[in-house]
Amino acid sequence: MSDPIRLAVVGMGKIAHDQHLPAIRDNAEFRLVATVSRHGEATDGLPFFASIDELAASGLAVDAVALCTPPQVRRSIAMTAIAKGWHVFLEKPPGATLAEVVTLCDAADAAGISLFASWHSRYAAGVEPARAWLAERTITRATITWREDVRVWHPGQHWIWEPGGFGVFDPGINALSIATRILPHAFFVEQAELDVPSNCAAPIAARVDFRDTQGTAIAMDLDFRQEGPQSWDIVVETDAGTLTLAKGGGELSLPGGETPAGTALHGEYPGLYARFAEIVRAGTSDVDVAPIRLVADAFLRGRHIPVDPFVE
Amino acid sequence: MSDPIRLAVVGMGKIAHDQHLPAIRDNAEFRLVATVSRHGEATDGLPFFASIDELAASGLAVDAVALCTPPQVRRSIAMTAIAKGWHVFLEKPPGATLAEVVTLCDAADAAGISLFASWHSRYAAGVEPARAWLAERTITRATITWREDVRVWHPGQHWIWEPGGFGVFDPGINALSIATRILPHAFFVEQAELDVPSNCAAPIAARVDFRDTQGTAIAMDLDFRQEGPQSWDIVVETDAGTLTLAKGGGELSLPGGETPAGTALHGEYPGLYARFAEIVRAGTSDVDVAPIRLVADAFLRGRHIPVDPFVE
Repeated sequence: MSDPIRLAVVGMGKIAHDQHLPAIRDNAEFRLVATVSRHGEATDGLPFFASIDELAASGLAVDAVALCTPPQVRRSIAMTAIAKGWHVFLEKPPGATLAEVVTLCDAADAAGISLFASWHSRYAAGVEPARAWLAERTITRATITWREDVRVWHPGQHWIWEPGGFGVFDPGINALSIATRILPHAFFVEQAELDVPSNCAAPIAARVDFRDTQGTAIAMDLDFRQEGPQSWDIVVETDAGTLTLAKGGGELSLPGGETPAGTALHGEYPGLYARFAEIVRAGTSDVDVAPIRLVADAFLRGRHIPVDPFVE
Repeated sequence: MSDPIRLAVVGMGKIAHDQHLPAIRDNAEFRLVATVSRHGEATDGLPFFASIDELAASGLAVDAVALCTPPQVRRSIAMTAIAKGWHVFLEKPPGATLAEVVTLCDAADAAGISLFASWHSRYAAGVEPARAWLAERTITRATITWREDVRVWHPGQHWIWEPGGFGVFDPGINALSIATRILPHAFFVEQAELDVPSNCAAPIAARVDFRDTQGTAIAMDLDFRQEGPQSWDIVVETDAGTLTLAKGGGELSLPGGETPAGTALHGEYPGLYARFAEIVRAGTSDVDVAPIRLVADAFLRGRHIPVDPFVE
């Protein structure tokens, strides 16, 4: 086995603590060597820096960075990392706009580094078995319901309401990252309604009608105002019965109680880091823009509907 | 010379009459064989049909179609044409969303037909000389000003105010088709404000701040409410002075009154049809999504500002 990949984590918010640090500690392919956070914060007694420029100036030996900042600032940090020759793991979404992601890809290719646009929900337990099962079926309709309580899941995340924060499409893009993986045909936005609070730039709820290249309707219902039971479900009706993928991709039910074909599973973020190590070792990149392209299309073709202000 | 390409024009609105028909008549590579229009309308005594399905069912020999309908219905018409094995010329923008254009590309490749996403402004007289001149300069700032009177230029075009019609970005995308061609570095949206009339789904004015990969600022000002003198100007400040491309790309001024390097010019639509014939003969496609991707990004990252209702 090669030497571990020396990794710095940039942006020490909720997702870095909850998901990245544990996954990195459990993967022998990586060695965490530093953290970067505006407020400065030591992790495991490691060196820490207030910005990626300070990290770059420190002379510390780094092979790769994981960028866990809000999407609005991700591009410029990624460009600094690429200029240093560091491999880059981008939290989802890979940017605040589509064109910036394309320019990152070009820069990564030119620099010969690996760029990873991560979509953690694609590594949920039910996703690959769902994809395999659907590949052999004819889809007649799909319904995506993603309703969660923003106050519980995104406390204090003001960036989510700013332009480029995507509002309810921040979780909604997880659903789209799954749907673009499991559904056998490409699909596109036909109609969208975006409910935008009068004090926010981004929607708190949305309804999007997609259609796939075979003419099949796919309906998506997103809501950030869901109290009580939460829903992260994709239901796919087929010629062989109905598939239900619940709990954000974690729980798959097939018609007649069929048992899904098993795959070795190690959780979403462990799966992402295994994949990142794989592309770094192989000298390739892994960037699929399909989920963010559909979000951009929903904004492009969406009708804004003003709704009550949001107060956290 | 090969036999002429037998062409049907679909969507007999203002742009078909003003631009497509004259350009087709003047190009010996094409022979107009039919027109398609919801209302039914004979042109030059040729067969006419109410829909592309009727054209397809007629058995008339057709090699290619030019789609001049509003963007919201273009994809399904294009898919019918591709299924018939016809080459497809798409008016700008190539679709109402980005993902649908990508699916059209895939379908065209699979069918072995030529797909042309046309950007007429790129064929304006000053564009290629501007590109050549800028390729050797360092850009310090660029300003795009596109202010026109929607009542004059888009009379009765209600689709422009509907979702997928893009509002003021319908002309604005012409500016972006030029800017993405002449500016030497890729650029992306950093900030956008979209003024949306309370009775419309699409903006009547917009201000967008872009930045290119070298850090250079590019500002765009779009307004559909311009009475009196109209502006379709791109001003590029460089280390060698200021370039001005006025009249929608038609008029180029270089610093010190330099004369632009000449290119043979035959007008925007004649240029488009020459290009379409070229790709059909070569068996290739020509689809650059960069302009529509930037428009989608402006909507994705733009702040909506409610403004007075628009009454034509």
